[in-house]
Order: sequence, then C-alpha cells, then structure tokens
Amino acid sequence: MADKKQIGAQSLSFDTPVYIRSAASIVGPKEGNGPLKDTFDRIVEDATFGKDSWEEGESEMMKQTSMLALEKAKMKAEDIRYLFAGDLLGQLIATTFGLMDFNIPLFGLYGACSTMGEALSLGAMSVNAGYADNVLAVVSSHFGGAEKQFRFPLEYGNQRPMSSTWTVTGCGAFVLSKEYGDTMITGITTGKVVDYGVKDSLNMGACMAPAAADVIYQHLKDFKRKPEDYDRIVTGDLGKVGKEILCKLLKDQKIDIADVHMDCGMVIYDDPEQDTHSGGSGCGCSAVTLAGKLLNEIRRGEWERILFVPTGALLSTVSYNEGRSVPGIAHAVVIERRK
Amino acid sequence: MADKKQIGAQSLSFDTPVYIRSAASIVGPKEGNGPLKDTFDRIVEDATFGKDSWEEGESEMMKQTSMLALEKAKMKAEDIRYLFAGDLLGQLIATTFGLMDFNIPLFGLYGACSTMGEALSLGAMSVNAGYADNVLAVVSSHFGGAEKQFRFPLEYGNQRPMSSTWTVTGCGAFVLSKEYGDTMITGITTGKVVDYGVKDSLNMGACMAPAAADVIYQHLKDFKRKPEDYDRIVTGDLGKVGKEILCKLLKDQKIDIADVHMDCGMVIYDDPEQDTHSGGSGCGCSAVTLAGKLLNEIRRGEWERILFVPTGALLSTVSYNEGRSVPGIAHAVVIERRK
Repeated sequence: MADKKQIGAQSLSFDTPVYIRSAASIVGPKEGNGPLKDTFDRIVEDATFGKDSWEEGESEMMKQTSMLALEKAKMKAEDIRYLFAGDLLGQLIATTFGLMDFNIPLFGLYGACSTMGEALSLGAMSVNAGYADNVLAVVSSHFGGAEKQFRFPLEYGNQRPMSSTWTVTGCGAFVLSKEYGDTMITGITTGKVVDYGVKDSLNMGACMAPAAADVIYQHLKDFKRKPEDYDRIVTGDLGKVGKEILCKLLKDQKIDIADVHMDCGMVIYDDPEQDTHSGGSGCGCSAVTLAGKLLNEIRRGEWERILFVPTGALLSTVSYNEGRSVPGIAHAVVIERRK
Repeated sequence: MADKKQIGAQSLSFDTPVYIRSAASIVGPKEGNGPLKDTFDRIVEDATFGKDSWEEGESEMMKQTSMLALEKAKMKAEDIRYLFAGDLLGQLIATTFGLMDFNIPLFGLYGACSTMGEALSLGAMSVNAGYADNVLAVVSSHFGGAEKQFRFPLEYGNQRPMSSTWTVTGCGAFVLSKEYGDTMITGITTGKVVDYGVKDSLNMGACMAPAAADVIYQHLKDFKRKPEDYDRIVTGDLGKVGKEILCKLLKDQKIDIADVHMDCGMVIYDDPEQDTHSGGSGCGCSAVTLAGKLLNEIRRGEWERILFVPTGALLSTVSYNEGRSVPGIAHAVVIERRK
C-alpha cells in the first residue's frame, strides 16, 4: 500500500509529501501595477500578448508561464507525465490552444475560479500515488476574455457595482514532483457544490463564500486542526463582500478565522486607487498569488504552513439568464515548508 | 508502494484492477428508437425531462442516471467519496445543477466528448491508489442544448451536411469500486491534444480521428499489445467520416484495426432511417454505449477485453469564429471481464 490516507469524510493526507518543484506567474499590466508587482515573474504591458484576440492572448500567457515553470524546474516537456489544466473560457480554449504544443497528456479541468485547487489536488494525488514523477498544474484567467464571456464586452462600457470583482489577467504554473522543492503539498480537502441561492452574477463573493466556509469547516474537522494551526488560511477571490460572509458563516460554527484569514482577491489590487471595487477574481487570482507572494513567504520562513483555498462561482450566462442561482465550489490544499 | 505502474510514455497498468460495480444509462427518444434501445436502462419520451429548458433537462437526466447507478450498486451518495463528472455545456452547468444535491466532493472535468474516458481514468486512478473506496463517474450530452450552444438553435432549422453528427441525448453513470463488479478497468492511456488544422465544426469526425489514432498507437506501444489482443477497439463518436480517417492513419503506422474497430457513433442510430448523417456524437454517445451494449457483451462472455476510447473535439464557438482549428483529444481505457 502507498502511504496515502483517507482522512475524515473529504480529505487526503499525504505522509510522503508532494514537492512544489517550481512555480511561475505571468500577469497583465493592471496586476503589474498592484501591490504584489514585485512577486510576479513577468509583467506584460500588452494584455493581448501580441495576439489578435483576448482568447489567443490568454493562450499565449498560459504557454509562456508553463515554459517558465519548466525552465525553473530545469525540465523539458518530456519530463512531465500529465498536465492538469483549465481556464474560465467555454470549452477551455485558452488551455487547448495554449498548451497543445507541449505534447503532454492532458486532463482538462473546470472548477471555475477554484480550478487551481482542483489542479493541485489531482496533480498531487497522481504524484503521491506514483502515477507520475512530475506533473504540471496550470490555470489562468483573463479580464478581457472573461468580461466578454460572462458579462459585457469591454467596449460596452457598463458600470460595475461596488460588489463586483475584477477578473485577474494572470496565469500560474506549478511543477509538482516526488522529489526536490522547498515547499510541499501535504494534504487536500475536496469541495462540494454549495448553493445558497444567490442570483447576482456581479456579487461573486457572496456566491462563493458558503462553499469556502463548507470546505474549511470540513478540512479542520477531517484533520482535527484549528485555524491557528495555519499561519494563513488563504481564500481565492472572495473579495471584501465574500470575506465578511465567510467569517460570519464560520463564526456561526464556532470557528474564528479572522486572525489568519487572507483573500488573494483583496491583496492583488490596491483599492480604491485601482478601482476594482470588491477586489480581484478569476482562476489566475489565486494562482499568481500562490506562485508569488504565498510561496515566497513560506520559503523565507515567515510562514510554516498555509491552507490554500481557491474559490469558484459556477456561473454560466445560460444558466444565469434562465434564472438559476450561482452555486460555489472550493478546494483546499495544505502547503508547507519543506522540513 | 501501491501496485500501480507507469507503462511506457502515457499509460498506467493497474495490477489490482478497479471494478465497475454498476453502470446506468438514460437516453432520449431518438436514441430509444435506435438499434441499441434494448440495452439502455431508461428511455425518456420527453427530451426536456419535464423541465423548462434543454439545460435543466440535461441536469435532470444526470441526476436520474446517477441515482440509478447508486441504486444498482446498492449504495447511497454517502458511500461515494468523489464525483468525476462533466458535460458539454459552458461551465459544466448540466453537471453543477444536476449533481449538487448528491453532496459529494466534485472534480469537474472537461474533455469535450472524450470526458467519459477522462472521468473513468481519474476515477480508476483514485480507487487504485486507495484515495477512495467508491467513486462515481458521470458524463452527459443533450442534442437540444449542444446544438444551441455549438451550432444553431433547433428552431432555426438549418440544413446539416452529410459529414455532421447528431449529439446523443444521453447520460452514463458508473460506480467504480475496489471490490465487486463483473467488469473491471485494468489500465489507461491518457491522450494529448492533437491538431491537424481541420476547421469544419460540422465535420467533427475528421477533427477527432487524429487524436484517436495517436492514443491508440501509443496505447498499443506502451502495453506492447496488438489490435487482436482486444475483442474490440471502441472509439467514441468518430462517425463514418472519422472512422475512415482513423483506420487510414493507423494503417500508415502499419497497424490494422479494421477487424476489431467499432465506433459508438456508428452503432447508436439506424442510418439512413434515423437521418443523423455521419452518426452519433457527444459525451453521452460513448457513455451510454458503454453502460449498455459494451458492458453487456463483456458480461455475457462475448468479449474478454476491449479498449474504450472516447474521442473529443475541442470546439468552442469563440475559437471557431475567430478562425481557429478544432483540435481533438482521446483517452483510452482497458475494460475486461472479471477473472
């Protein structure tokens, strides 16, 4: 038997940790002007990445970020056994066109903005089980493509309510390996779809907060841990509105995460100066914050262990326009400094 | 170490097999009038499943099929540790709304019509590694929803060229377990995105055939097997046009699969009587054919071992209308009779 363990109802604990051998991030100009600018590997001034459309630009961003992650790991595409990847666009076209030249077997994933958690979870499961020595987990989002698909094309110039978040133009790529790496994944808690009936596609934080609360509650229960066992519990992109709801929902369960909670969506932009309203969102939001700031803090010993919880709003224009609610999902990943 | 093995460049061989404990299929009226009608668990006369939209109908179909698979396995939702599920709709809304009431941790997957192969692969990997005792793999497609999303709304009444396929209204659900079951998964080969530059969204067979050829070639190489080691090599939904291309591409590599090849898209409808043109397609096509006919043949001893190869066309209306090609992907799963 491998040294993996089912823990509680929804979690796995990896006795043999899975190492994060390299991490790379590329972002657009707005993110590059924000508070985390010094933590990204590359800031691109032209958000089309020199291509003819937002979608092709996002593909190019995924390609460049993946190449950078491989370079940092001193690996070639042939060294990677599986790709776990996804994005926000319908039918994952950013992933398809961005990553096909790598010629790596692909598991295409969709978990809305929680996809980074899903990719790291399945990637770590594969490495821990011995199915792969190295895998690449990549997710991205793009403001232009996401607004066009989910809300209004940028040219329309709609007003954004204060509860709305700003989709991060950014991609994070991670090589997970059975050896090497100064940070590691030691456990995961896989989330369920949680629906509180919120119907406002411009208030994604409220849609996702119940799912985040659900998976954090379950994680602490499964691992028999308390919030203070983590230096940070880091949600993906709840924004200001979602953060309040999350903390309240957990407080109702007698769990207080206020002292250790951090939300990637609230640290990636400088508000109100950058005028994003409720903060950042998108798969790329948690991905580039992890690849930059979060792993940096762990590497330099500021933090020993964090719970990384990307959060997704399962929104489709079709379901939304047919009057359905926007359910949420979130996946939790335990990331620690190498002992 | 667990008894799993990396085989060749893209495959895994499970020395401890993963059992298919139950399989369920529900289809719409057109499929219920086709040659496989006696193999489906349930045929529904109203393709909206009593709901207000195609999308909600598809969700209801996924729900009912999953419940049926659980019933057949004599299990409850609580017995299932993970859901591996997907559909063709943007942001997987059929999956989200259809399966959320089961309250099972979800890995959302997108591999176009190859998703059944992806779900069975990741599900089998999880069970074999000991991460779960039981998982549920579910995929679906729906003619009304797919035409509306990918091509033209049904009300538009467009003419369909002879190369076009008919999206199957159907859902297949499978409980995979570490024990019990008269059929089993003994290996997988995970496919890459393959792009031959075909740009015709009404000729999906031609888009997918190169990916099917690639993964079948690699599978036979990795496992050191020949086509005749399989009673059938079953592709998902290449249709007549795609089948010819597949056989030719493999023949160019000196592999002749003509005697053992079968395509789910070519057996699910009775053409030309049912007027589908090049055959059936959609995630549901391979899923319901596996749940019905294919597993039946294995169970009753007609076949000992098949290679199941769902095939996907990575088509988006956005990428397509921006002039991009339609790349393909396919995933291969070895299914055998219990020894």
